Amino acid sequence: MLRDCRYDILFEPVKIGPVTAPNRFYQTPHAIGMGWQRPKAGAALRGIKAEGGWGVVCTEYCSIHPTSDDSPYGFLTLWDDDDVATLALTADAIHAHGSLAGVELWHGGSHASNRMTRVPGIAPSTIPAMYHLPTTARGMDLADIRAFRGWQRDAAKRAKRAGFDIVYVYAGHDYLPFQFLSPRHNRRTDEYGGSLVNRVRLLREMIEDTREAVGDTCAVAVRLAVDELHGPGGITSDGEGREIVAMLAELPDLWDVNVAGSLGNDSKSARFSQEGYQEPQVAFVKQLTTKPVVSVGRFTSPDVMVSQIRRGIQDFIGAARPSIADPFLPNKIRDGRLDEIRECIGCNICRAANNEGVHLRCTQNPTISEEWRRGWHPEKIATYTKREKVLVVGAGPSGLEAALSLGRRGLDVTLAERRAKLGGRILNESTLPGLATWIRVRDWRQQMIAKLPTIEVFPGSEMTADDIAGFGADHVVLATGAKWRRDGVGVNGMDVLDLPHALTPDDVFAGAQLAGHIVIYDDEHYFMAGALAEKLARAGHSVTLVTPNPTVSSWTAMTDEQGFLQARLHEIELPMQTGRLLQGQEKGRLRLACSASGKASELACDTLIVATGRVPDDRLFHELTSTARPFTVSRVGDCLQPSSIADAVYSAHRFAREFGEASVAVPRRERPPVKDIA
Amino acid sequence: MLRDCRYDILFEPVKIGPVTAPNRFYQTPHAIGMGWQRPKAGAALRGIKAEGGWGVVCTEYCSIHPTSDDSPYGFLTLWDDDDVATLALTADAIHAHGSLAGVELWHGGSHASNRMTRVPGIAPSTIPAMYHLPTTARGMDLADIRAFRGWQRDAAKRAKRAGFDIVYVYAGHDYLPFQFLSPRHNRRTDEYGGSLVNRVRLLREMIEDTREAVGDTCAVAVRLAVDELHGPGGITSDGEGREIVAMLAELPDLWDVNVAGSLGNDSKSARFSQEGYQEPQVAFVKQLTTKPVVSVGRFTSPDVMVSQIRRGIQDFIGAARPSIADPFLPNKIRDGRLDEIRECIGCNICRAANNEGVHLRCTQNPTISEEWRRGWHPEKIATYTKREKVLVVGAGPSGLEAALSLGRRGLDVTLAERRAKLGGRILNESTLPGLATWIRVRDWRQQMIAKLPTIEVFPGSEMTADDIAGFGADHVVLATGAKWRRDGVGVNGMDVLDLPHALTPDDVFAGAQLAGHIVIYDDEHYFMAGALAEKLARAGHSVTLVTPNPTVSSWTAMTDEQGFLQARLHEIELPMQTGRLLQGQEKGRLRLACSASGKASELACDTLIVATGRVPDDRLFHELTSTARPFTVSRVGDCLQPSSIADAVYSAHRFAREFGEASVAVPRRERPPVKDIA
Repeated sequence: MLRDCRYDILFEPVKIGPVTAPNRFYQTPHAIGMGWQRPKAGAALRGIKAEGGWGVVCTEYCSIHPTSDDSPYGFLTLWDDDDVATLALTADAIHAHGSLAGVELWHGGSHASNRMTRVPGIAPSTIPAMYHLPTTARGMDLADIRAFRGWQRDAAKRAKRAGFDIVYVYAGHDYLPFQFLSPRHNRRTDEYGGSLVNRVRLLREMIEDTREAVGDTCAVAVRLAVDELHGPGGITSDGEGREIVAMLAELPDLWDVNVAGSLGNDSKSARFSQEGYQEPQVAFVKQLTTKPVVSVGRFTSPDVMVSQIRRGIQDFIGAARPSIADPFLPNKIRDGRLDEIRECIGCNICRAANNEGVHLRCTQNPTISEEWRRGWHPEKIATYTKREKVLVVGAGPSGLEAALSLGRRGLDVTLAERRAKLGGRILNESTLPGLATWIRVRDWRQQMIAKLPTIEVFPGSEMTADDIAGFGADHVVLATGAKWRRDGVGVNGMDVLDLPHALTPDDVFAGAQLAGHIVIYDDEHYFMAGALAEKLARAGHSVTLVTPNPTVSSWTAMTDEQGFLQARLHEIELPMQTGRLLQGQEKGRLRLACSASGKASELACDTLIVATGRVPDDRLFHELTSTARPFTVSRVGDCLQPSSIADAVYSAHRFAREFGEASVAVPRRERPPVKDIA
Repeated sequence: MLRDCRYDILFEPVKIGPVTAPNRFYQTPHAIGMGWQRPKAGAALRGIKAEGGWGVVCTEYCSIHPTSDDSPYGFLTLWDDDDVATLALTADAIHAHGSLAGVELWHGGSHASNRMTRVPGIAPSTIPAMYHLPTTARGMDLADIRAFRGWQRDAAKRAKRAGFDIVYVYAGHDYLPFQFLSPRHNRRTDEYGGSLVNRVRLLREMIEDTREAVGDTCAVAVRLAVDELHGPGGITSDGEGREIVAMLAELPDLWDVNVAGSLGNDSKSARFSQEGYQEPQVAFVKQLTTKPVVSVGRFTSPDVMVSQIRRGIQDFIGAARPSIADPFLPNKIRDGRLDEIRECIGCNICRAANNEGVHLRCTQNPTISEEWRRGWHPEKIATYTKREKVLVVGAGPSGLEAALSLGRRGLDVTLAERRAKLGGRILNESTLPGLATWIRVRDWRQQMIAKLPTIEVFPGSEMTADDIAGFGADHVVLATGAKWRRDGVGVNGMDVLDLPHALTPDDVFAGAQLAGHIVIYDDEHYFMAGALAEKLARAGHSVTLVTPNPTVSSWTAMTDEQGFLQARLHEIELPMQTGRLLQGQEKGRLRLACSASGKASELACDTLIVATGRVPDDRLFHELTSTARPFTVSRVGDCLQPSSIADAVYSAHRFAREFGEASVAVPRRERPPVKDIA
C-alpha cells in the first residue's frame, strides 16, 4: 500500500547539532530492565527498534559513577572501559539500520540506592534517600560538584568511544541535575542554590562540559522535566520550568521535555491519561528555542503525530511505550500499513516489569525482551512446513494470538468462539473505567487475522468435546480462559470460605442483580476490584472496598497507578477498609479480621463481590484428554494459567513459535565466565 | 590460647550417610543475594566460611527448573550443564579447606515468581501466586509430578558432577514439597492429597529418587519445616510435623529442621526472639531418628552450642546469621579465642539485603560479600608500612571500627570519645525494646581494641578543632556521628516545617521532659519511631504513632520484622495513624493531611517527637577543613552519611582498608562477555 502524502512530514530528516536523524520517530530513553548485566539482550531489543524505523533510538538510564547505582534494577553503566565495549553493542545494533544512537547519562542523586556499590549517595542538600531506607544522601560541597562534572565529562567521552551520536544531560524524573533545579531539593546557600540562576548553574555547566567533551561529533541533548506537578512549591511549566528553558534555550542541540516529578507522572497509564496528555505542559518549549524538541504522550495515531509537528508542539514524535508495543510502527506508517500498527494500550505492564526489577513485558508485543534470548522478531515468524489443521477454541487474548501466530506460520487455522463477539475477557474488562484502550488487544489481532487467508473465524460457536473430536483437526488448542473463584481463596486468605451468596466479577459482567450495599473484597490486588468499585459507585451503587492489604489495589503500584487510583477513589468518596481479611458472610453482614492483630470486626453487606483469584476454565481440556485422541490437545493463556493479559498473549505466542519444535525450557542467558577464577 | 576441653565435642567428626563432616559446625543454606549471576563472589564467600572452620558449608537456594525462578532475587540454578561449571566454583572453594559442600535444590511452587523465565508456575492445587501478582500457580497433574521428580533427579546428578557432597530435598519455607505436605496448600483428591500419607508421598519419592540418583557418594539431606506456625490449620510440631518425621525417620541421611511457614519465622530478629528460640519446636526430631539432625537458632555462645549437643537437641550447630557475622567462629572456639568471636546481633540487615534483591550486608562483618570483588578477608588486613599517627574522634560504630582496623594495619591510633562510655548511638539504641544485643557492635570492637598495643583509647575526652589541630596527628578521622533532624523533612515530607516545640529521639535519650499525650511521627520508617513508641508506652506514657506510609515502621518489612512489630504494637493497644503526613504543630494539636487525598485532619498532641531523618554532626570537619592543615582530615560513618549501623561500620572499614591506597571506586564486577554477539 502507498503512504498517504500527509504523513510525509514524519519522514523528513531532522538535524540535531552535528548529527542528522533520518526521520522524526524518536525512541526516547526508557528502561528495559536489562542493564549492564544483559548487554546482548539489550542491544538486540534496541536494534529491532532501529530496524522498525525509529530514526533515533536511545538507551535506558546509564550511570556515570558508582555513587549512582540503582541495583537491583536494570541500569547501564559507563564507569570504566569494560562498559565502553558493553555499550558499543547497543550503538552498533542501532547503527546497523541507519538510525542514530542516544545514551541517557544518569545520576540519581538522592534517588540512587547504591545497594550494590555501597558508596554514600549525594544530593544538592542533605536529605533522606527516598528509595534506600534508612539512608541519607549527603549534601555536596564544591569539591563534590567539581568531581561530579568530571564524571559527566568522562562518561560522555566513553559514550562517544562506544559510538553514540546523542549524549544526554539528564535533568528529569527527580534525578540529580533536576534536584539542583528544584527548590524542594536544593536548599544550598552558595552559588548553586537560592536564585534560579544559581540553581540552573550546574545544568548549564553540564551542557557546556558535555559539549566540550564530545560536541564535535555528538549532539548534546537535555532531558528536562518542565513541570514536577507539585504546584507552586516546585518547578512548573508556567513558572520556573519555562524560565529554565528560556535561560538555556540555544545551549543544547535538542530538548527532550516531559512532565515528571516521579516517573509515574511521565508514564501515566491509559486509565489516568489520554494520548498527548503532556501537551499543555510541554507545548511552550518550541516557542523559546530554535533547537529541535521532542516529547512523549503515548502517541499511536499517525494523524495525531502529524498534528504535533504541524502545530509546532514538537519536531519529533517521541515514544517509549508505543515503540515497545510496536517496534515497527514507523515503517508501517511509511509503507501505508496503518491497519497493522499494534497500538500500545497504556496498561503499563512494561512499567511493572521495571518496578519489579526484571526485563520488559508488553501486553501487545510478546516478542519484547525475547529478541536475543529466544531469537524472536516482532514481524517475522518461521513457516511451518507441514500442511496441518488447527482448531483454536476461544477467541480471547490467547486464542486470538494463537490463531494469528499459527496462521502466520502457514497452518490451516479455525478459530471458534462461543460468544457473538471476539475478545473474551477484554470484552468485559474494557468496559471498566479507563480501560477502553484494552480492546486494542483484540482489535489488532482481529484485523490481522482478517487479512490472512489461512485463518477462518467462527463467532457464536460454542463447541462441546464431541464437536471438537468430530471436527477433524490435527491439533486442538484450548484458549477457554478462566473464571473468578468464589471460595475466597486469595493471595492472603488461603482458607476456603463458605460464601454461598458471594458474587464474582464474572457474575457482575453477566448482569447479576446488585441489591443494597455492595462490598467488593479484593485479595487479588490488581485492577479488577478497584475498577469495579469505581464503576459501580459511579453508577449510583453504595459500595465499600475491603482488602487485607495495607493499600487498595496494591499491585497497581507496579504499574505506577496505585497513587492515582487511590486519589480517584478518595475523590468519589468511596469507603475503603484496608488491612481486613474476610472470614465469612452472614445474612446482611461480613465477618472480618484485622490482618495485623486478628481482631474481629463486622461490616454491613447486602451484596458481596469477591475478587480473590481465578481458576482455569479447563473442562474441555480434561474431557478431551481423558481418552486417547487422533489429535493433539494443548492449552494456552488463562486456560493453562490465569494471569495478566500480557502473560496470556505471551503464552499463546510461545506456543505458536514452538509449535512442531522442541520447547525451549531454558532460553539463552547472559552469564559471567567462570574460568578465570584464580 | 588453648581450647577448654569442654568444647572438644564441637570438633568431633560426624558421619552423614556416605560422607563425614570434619566437625559439628554446619552452615545451613542461606541466601547471599548473588546467585547464578555472581558465581565467583558467591564461591569466595562460601570458601571463607570453610576456611573459618565450618565443617559443612551449603549454598543458597538452587533452582532445579525454570518453573522455579525467583528473579530479581539472587538464586542459583542447576538447569543445564553451564550451571554445573558455575556451581563447581563453590564446591571447589569449600573443598579447598576440607569442608563438605551442600547444595539446596529448590522448587518454589506457588512462591516462585518466574518473572525471568515467564513460564507458568506450578503448585499442588491451583492457587494465586503469592509473590507474582496477578498470577496463578497451576495445580499439577500426575504428568507434572512425574516431570517434577525428573527435574529433582537431574539437578541432583548435576550437583554431584559439580562436586557437592550433600544434596538437599527442600521441604521448608512454604516451597513446593512443603506445599504438598500442607493441607492449606494441598487440596488434591488423588494419591498425593488428602491423608497425611498421601501428602507425604511426593517428599518420600523425592528422597528415594535423589538417593537413587546420587546416594552412592552424596548424602541426601531433608530440610523440613516441622511447624509452619499457623496453629491447627497447618503443620505443627506436635501434630503432623512430628508424624512426617516419624514416617520418614531413617530415609534421609540428615534432617535439617526448622520452624517456617515464611522465611520470617525461621530468621526472626533478636528483637523478636532469643538464641535457640526454635528448640521447643525442633527438639523432638532427634528422638525419632538415628540420623544426624541440624537446626538453627542464632547460636553465638559456645556453651549454648555444647548444651545443644549434650542435651541431644541436635548433632550439629546449624547457623546462618552467626556464620555471616563471623565466618571464623568455629576456628576461634577451636583455638580458645572466645573473646574474639564477633557475635551476630540479630538485626537482620542480612535479610534486608536479600529482600531488596542485592548481596548480603552485615552489621558486624563489613567484609561479607566483598571477599571476591574487593579481596577483603574477615581476619586479615594489609600492614601499613609507614609509621604514622592517626587521631580518631568519636567512638560510635564507625569510630571504633576505624580505630580497630587502622590499628590492625599497624598505625599508631588514638581514639577520643566525648562521652564516658564508648558506643555512640548504640548506647541509646540498645536500650530500646529488643535491641540489647546491638551493644555487641561496641563490645567486640572494644575487646579487640584492648588487645592491640597500637591503639590508645580516651573516653570522656571532648575535642575542639583547636585540640585536634594541636594533637600532632598525621591523620584525623572524624566519626562524630549524626543528629536527628528537627525540621520535619523526611522520606515523604520534603518541605521544611516550622516545628518549634518538636523533640527528636536525641532529646528523648538525653532525658527531655515528656508531658501529656505524646505523638511520635515517623517519616524515616526503620526501627526508631516504632521502638520508641513501644518503650514509652510500656513506661506508662500515652503515645500515638503517626506515619505517612501505609504501615508503621514500613522498612522493617525488609528485615522481616514489620509483621511482628505491628502485631506487638496491636498487643499493647498502641494507637496508630497511618497514611497521615505531618503539616504543622499548633498548641495542643497537630495538623495532618491524608497521604492519598490530602484531606486535612487534626490530632491532639502535647509532646511531638519527630523521627524523619538525620543530618551529619560534621561541625568539626568543616572547622578543620576551613584552612590548610599539616594533617589529613577525613570523615567516616554517620558523620559522612547518616545511615544504618551496618553502613557506618562498612564506611569505616573501607576507609581503613584503602588508607594510603588508591580508593577503588568501581570494585570488580562479574559480567557477561560481549565478544560473541554474532
